[in-house]
Amino acid sequence: MRLYSMPSSGNSYKVRLLLSLLGRDCEIIDVEDSSDALAKAKAEGRLPFGKAPVLELDDGRLLPESNAILTWLGEGTAFVPADGFTRAEMLGWMFWEQNQHEGVIAVRAALLFYPQRRHLATPERLAELLERGHALLQIMEDRLTKRDWLVGDAASLADICLYGYTHSAGTRGGFDMTRFPAINAWLDRVAALPGHKGLYG
Amino acid sequence: MRLYSMPSSGNSYKVRLLLSLLGRDCEIIDVEDSSDALAKAKAEGRLPFGKAPVLELDDGRLLPESNAILTWLGEGTAFVPADGFTRAEMLGWMFWEQNQHEGVIAVRAALLFYPQRRHLATPERLAELLERGHALLQIMEDRLTKRDWLVGDAASLADICLYGYTHSAGTRGGFDMTRFPAINAWLDRVAALPGHKGLYG
Ligand SMILES: N[C@@H](CCC(=O)N[C@@H](CS)C(=O)NCC(=O)O)C(=O)O
Ligand SMILES: N[C@@H](CCC(=O)N[C@@H](CS)C(=O)NCC(=O)O)C(=O)O
Repeated sequence: MRLYSMPSSGNSYKVRLLLSLLGRDCEIIDVEDSSDALAKAKAEGRLPFGKAPVLELDDGRLLPESNAILTWLGEGTAFVPADGFTRAEMLGWMFWEQNQHEGVIAVRAALLFYPQRRHLATPERLAELLERGHALLQIMEDRLTKRDWLVGDAASLADICLYGYTHSAGTRGGFDMTRFPAINAWLDRVAALPGHKGLYG
Repeated sequence: MRLYSMPSSGNSYKVRLLLSLLGRDCEIIDVEDSSDALAKAKAEGRLPFGKAPVLELDDGRLLPESNAILTWLGEGTAFVPADGFTRAEMLGWMFWEQNQHEGVIAVRAALLFYPQRRHLATPERLAELLERGHALLQIMEDRLTKRDWLVGDAASLADICLYGYTHSAGTRGGFDMTRFPAINAWLDRVAALPGHKGLYG
């Protein structure tokens, strides 16, 4: 098993984090943004949608999309709830992450982080993303005020998925995390899971 | 079972289409864009993420996110592949739809369709979305040139999901569908499924 993984990216980090929590071995191929390694993986047809991460099975089958990789690796583990409705709720949070959260929280962080994007980081764009991001984080805050985990009563793929970009929303994205005490407590709970590792760790 | 559904929206249509393909009854509450009914559903706390569609179970539990609703309704039916890897691939296309396709194909259609958005439809924005949309549709075209369905060997939730906005990408979104013969043949295959129904009916 081999993971094409972008070291600086939350989408790739989600998968590395789950592998670590599960104690599973996997060869990691680093494909950093704008690198030759990324261009090579694309040219060799290893990234079906042109993006990282992608999981390559030992027989050569390729699975793109971070959250789909989480479901494949997570199947049959404690990170997938047994109850069908709770599982659907878990996927709901993961679709929301891809449709709403990632396009705001991760995008603002990327505009500030990658030198090659900085020309897109106009004050208007940054201000708009800040406001939208605070509204999205408030949805998580409201949920986590009432419960320890996003769905069910234990950590699930939904928590691992949303942790990917939320854990650095303050440091990288410039969001004001002092507004979100329930999110901060949840970040600490995820960080305390056995086998947890950091973005570069 | 009750569906809060936006009549004009592909995200809501996906769910109505699956209900019809499965021959399942469901009360439909219309919440059109910018309508009083939508505002009421939001005010009454029926839309956890502030968006339609949402499925309300008979016991009051709420499930947001069109694609999560598809997985819940589809569980145990022929639209969910038995093989685990094929199921993960199916979810991969559905995450891609929410992360890439919907934000371009549906957004361009919405800019042209809803009078209240037309001030956002600048020529530059429309041109950029046109180019990105053609590149995304090319990914589907390449896949469907080699196979009848997006994953496995029968229609799955991935096909129903992607059909939601692709079927009107030409008529509403202004994309040049003559470039994509394999997509057009696939659209015809989905339209021929027993129980198929159109956006408005
Ligand atoms: N929906 C995809 C998004 C993946 C994605 O956007 N990857 C970015 C890095 S975060 C990428 O590979 N960019 C490189 C490129 O587009 O050249 C997922 O969740 O895996
Ligand atoms: N990711 C969500 C997106 C839903 C969505 O964007 N719904 C729009 C219509 S397409 C909506 O409810 N808009 C009303 C509003 O924001 O006030 C899903 O797939 O269900």
